[in-house]
Amino acid sequence: MTHRTFSFDAQPDGLDPAITAPFPGSRRVYVQGSRPDVRVPMREITQADTVGDTGREANPPLTVYDTSGPYTDPDTPVDLRKGLPAIREAWILERDDTVLLDGPSSGFGQERLADPATAALRFEHIRPPRRARAGANVTQMHYARRGIITPEMEYIAIRENQQRQAITDERLLQRHAGEGFGAQIPDEITPEFVRQEVACGRAIIPSNINHPELEPMAIGRNFLVKINCNLGNSAVTSSIEEEVEKMVRGIRWGGDTVMDLSTGKHIHETREWILRNSPVPIGTVPIYQALEKVDGKAEELTWELFRDTLIEQAEQGVDYFTIHAGVRLPYVPMTANRLTGIVSRGGSIMAKWCLAHHRESFLYTHFEDICEIMKAYDVAFSLGDGLRPGCIADANDEAQFAELETLGELTRVAWQHDVQVMIEGPGHVPMQKIKENMDKELSICNEAPFYTLGPLTTDIAPGYDHITSAIGAAQIGWYGTAMLCYVTPKEHLGLPNKEDVREGIVAYRIAAHAADLAKGHPAAQVRDNALSKARFEFRWEDQFNLGLDPERAREYHDETLPKEGHKVAHFCSMCGPHFCSMKITQDVRAYAREHGLDTREALDRGMEEKAAEFRDAAHRLYQPR
Amino acid sequence: MTHRTFSFDAQPDGLDPAITAPFPGSRRVYVQGSRPDVRVPMREITQADTVGDTGREANPPLTVYDTSGPYTDPDTPVDLRKGLPAIREAWILERDDTVLLDGPSSGFGQERLADPATAALRFEHIRPPRRARAGANVTQMHYARRGIITPEMEYIAIRENQQRQAITDERLLQRHAGEGFGAQIPDEITPEFVRQEVACGRAIIPSNINHPELEPMAIGRNFLVKINCNLGNSAVTSSIEEEVEKMVRGIRWGGDTVMDLSTGKHIHETREWILRNSPVPIGTVPIYQALEKVDGKAEELTWELFRDTLIEQAEQGVDYFTIHAGVRLPYVPMTANRLTGIVSRGGSIMAKWCLAHHRESFLYTHFEDICEIMKAYDVAFSLGDGLRPGCIADANDEAQFAELETLGELTRVAWQHDVQVMIEGPGHVPMQKIKENMDKELSICNEAPFYTLGPLTTDIAPGYDHITSAIGAAQIGWYGTAMLCYVTPKEHLGLPNKEDVREGIVAYRIAAHAADLAKGHPAAQVRDNALSKARFEFRWEDQFNLGLDPERAREYHDETLPKEGHKVAHFCSMCGPHFCSMKITQDVRAYAREHGLDTREALDRGMEEKAAEFRDAAHRLYQPR
Repeated sequence: MTHRTFSFDAQPDGLDPAITAPFPGSRRVYVQGSRPDVRVPMREITQADTVGDTGREANPPLTVYDTSGPYTDPDTPVDLRKGLPAIREAWILERDDTVLLDGPSSGFGQERLADPATAALRFEHIRPPRRARAGANVTQMHYARRGIITPEMEYIAIRENQQRQAITDERLLQRHAGEGFGAQIPDEITPEFVRQEVACGRAIIPSNINHPELEPMAIGRNFLVKINCNLGNSAVTSSIEEEVEKMVRGIRWGGDTVMDLSTGKHIHETREWILRNSPVPIGTVPIYQALEKVDGKAEELTWELFRDTLIEQAEQGVDYFTIHAGVRLPYVPMTANRLTGIVSRGGSIMAKWCLAHHRESFLYTHFEDICEIMKAYDVAFSLGDGLRPGCIADANDEAQFAELETLGELTRVAWQHDVQVMIEGPGHVPMQKIKENMDKELSICNEAPFYTLGPLTTDIAPGYDHITSAIGAAQIGWYGTAMLCYVTPKEHLGLPNKEDVREGIVAYRIAAHAADLAKGHPAAQVRDNALSKARFEFRWEDQFNLGLDPERAREYHDETLPKEGHKVAHFCSMCGPHFCSMKITQDVRAYAREHGLDTREALDRGMEEKAAEFRDAAHRLYQPR
Repeated sequence: MTHRTFSFDAQPDGLDPAITAPFPGSRRVYVQGSRPDVRVPMREITQADTVGDTGREANPPLTVYDTSGPYTDPDTPVDLRKGLPAIREAWILERDDTVLLDGPSSGFGQERLADPATAALRFEHIRPPRRARAGANVTQMHYARRGIITPEMEYIAIRENQQRQAITDERLLQRHAGEGFGAQIPDEITPEFVRQEVACGRAIIPSNINHPELEPMAIGRNFLVKINCNLGNSAVTSSIEEEVEKMVRGIRWGGDTVMDLSTGKHIHETREWILRNSPVPIGTVPIYQALEKVDGKAEELTWELFRDTLIEQAEQGVDYFTIHAGVRLPYVPMTANRLTGIVSRGGSIMAKWCLAHHRESFLYTHFEDICEIMKAYDVAFSLGDGLRPGCIADANDEAQFAELETLGELTRVAWQHDVQVMIEGPGHVPMQKIKENMDKELSICNEAPFYTLGPLTTDIAPGYDHITSAIGAAQIGWYGTAMLCYVTPKEHLGLPNKEDVREGIVAYRIAAHAADLAKGHPAAQVRDNALSKARFEFRWEDQFNLGLDPERAREYHDETLPKEGHKVAHFCSMCGPHFCSMKITQDVRAYAREHGLDTREALDRGMEEKAAEFRDAAHRLYQPR
């Protein structure tokens, strides 16, 4: 057996240092929970002191949510060939409800493990898979419903709080009342709150027992809005190294989960590499791989083949499966007169199967069998919207909502098995029709988390669909969507490159954060306040570092003012050095302080006689031309 | 007198051909009105035939709004040294209410004209300015209120309709009901409707009598949502050529109006070059130039100096002035405890003046004097929001809304003079507080058009503020804002380069169009439908050409599939050649057609016995692997 040489072999962590170096001013820190092995990662952003006329004032570091995993922690070197540490292993073992299998129980899994042709590509340290003991149910929902607070739940509570209880500065804590449309976000997230949300199905914790490397996170509308980014090779392109690097890049920029949508060669092996090195939940669309196994002939798909694929992937550790079980035979005709028909790949595969056999979808008829598999590994459902609209004209139509009704029915079936569920949503929707999607989802699917693609609010901007869709994503996130699936500028045109991925993720981090702000999430506005304070005080470095993309902010600033001295300058290239709008307020404050007055009082009364004095003082404060 | 050599001298039109070439598949056409000199420009986008199993079907060209001026018309060569044709001159003369002056009547205008040092920079063919006859009022509002339909109003009616009455294809005409929040957009815009909207102040037509080169357009919430882009040199940078090129580039990408925010050298001369070559309304902030005249010392500003500046610019042809007359002395203290104080440059200048003199703003006390100037040239007010919030924390505060109350008061004063008014709006506003801004503006300012900067929905993404703000702009546009002021990715960081301008404008065209769709504008969805139909039919070229940025769409597509053959391929690089989601619906339709069935009926009934047949047929339709 000859081993292929991976680029991973050449470098300690096999990754471009540009994607593992911590952001400037940032370091990864850990907050310990009730036990030593609950160590919750966060990113701490250091700030410079405020330097005023009256001296210095320290600005404490700001702690933000961190999705980047150990990659950005110089103290935890990563060896991609060995995978990440199995931080959840002890928790899974303690629950004592699983068994370790001798090897993969899926036919395909066994075949691939024995295939000498793929040996050289294979991740070296494949663990034997774990499965629920006979009769056991290992889902987080099952524990939650029995009143058990798992370490995963505690981890998430700490993580969602972002250490905001440590902040005391009122200027940072000030915030607007939100409009949550029914969301109920407590001031402090407790482990018990997490448990309740999971128990009632309003949140999920995607966390396959075969993915112990996972840093647990929650998807639910009473938590921070999350974003998903996609990767995947296709028939044409890309190596295993590239896919692993895409994953690491995606979480660096802020992807909360990653979907592996591979359709090309070596899907199984690629997925193993990704899972072993991913600290975030990995989702897949198993029907894609199933289709590859029948050489792309949708009508040759069978329940048995699909079932084997589910087990294959569940035993590798996939945390959620997109399953288009709502694409029922009678709904397919509803799409016939659409402007763009069916645009979901999974939906189209199943529609084709249903028509070719004139039979009800096997995903629907075998749904309870699927639940049995899901609960044996704790794979969450992401119930696919196979009939989502592919253009503005088709939005909110009969086909789309008929499928949604079925997704509601299936949600209740899954919940009878204590299987976690989220619901996928559109697509292309004009703004005035977005809220109807959210409202229907909440009522039809009993508040199961909504996970939407965009929606794109117009069709007329190919090349800019990260923007057409960020507009819709921010709105639907505000209305209650729990996770937003990103869209890159290449949508409808081609496969995204690494810059497109960055653009797409940042656009979606913006949408998610704008939604958190609008909902009145207690932690959200702190970061806006800190950044704006830095902006007002001309702390340029802090302004860059507190932003979503410090590297780009710095690069843009430096295009016109590259010198280091400009990073403390009390002006920028927009107005130039002679007049800065924000400085007037600073001058006023300085004047009031000098005269021992409260700023507002100083201005409200008694200013008249001091006008001349202020005029001279203010004059001095401006730089000479 | 030695003449400086402009780069304009070298090339016939002095412009980079990349910004004057028509978009691929597009040509500029003219629709004639009731008289030969009302020739309304539009862009006609040619489409390829639909090629199906049953033959070809023609797709008629689509006509869209065109802001690009004669630059994209190969039949109308532009000589920048001579300026654009004065298409409105006859209309202005016919009204017989103006006089031609001997020369500039402002002191500064006279001085510059006589200054040998600027002679070499000067536009060669400066016309003597025109002014209302003594006692006359030459505003479009004045005519409208007297029941006069001007050629400008007719021009706008034709322009806003975009020839949609010529479309007969039901698939293109289908549209969703809108939610207009009180907007009343008729199915067909008539000249009389334009008149009514202008008469009641709900729309403005910025159209200085000294800017006869203007292609008239309307800003109002019952018309298409417009966007503004900015240009301007600063203390550091940029020549006259660059500013003219920025203007041409801005209108190419879709800027409906352009603001010249220059603060650097030769502001007067630069403005002349821009106006003589601009087919879109030009706005300015006269206080910027006034400040330059007192060497940046705000406290040295006087009414007399400001007045002279207004006349100087009005006689050059500026179509609207941003005037921060709502920044009143008692409001300044309200900003003292803000997180970022005053961030509007004009607001800050006036606040400083008020404080230094402890006197009410001369813009407020001389407001009626300003109205006298505005109505003598038909310059519209853009009442500036000098106290707009500069961060999320400061949104919708006391200072902002106190100023808005004053803007409402001033609107009513201006309307007593039949002077046109729009109102500038924020700034930085979280989503849940956007609608309050719109609602207050409508009620306080009696439905005068709102013109907003963004708003930015979060502060945490420097480098991506075109996106943080497009999210807010789409929403406020939907709620009723008439014009959106663009924001580029460089906002808060530096001056935009040409790529930033393109990004900013396209982001705002998206926001404006998403708003039009959501309001249910009768013309809006046609373009989405046409593009989506092209997408579904794999007419790649048409998909690119119907989009907002055909060049980028093509470039992105070609990154993975560069061959010409790929432009008619029934697949893209996303799924590869073996399975396309959208193709299933096409297969189903083809099958129904073959069997003489209505598509939906074919699927609804009688499919069972044909399942095998369809299976084979469908199979054939997919390309062999």
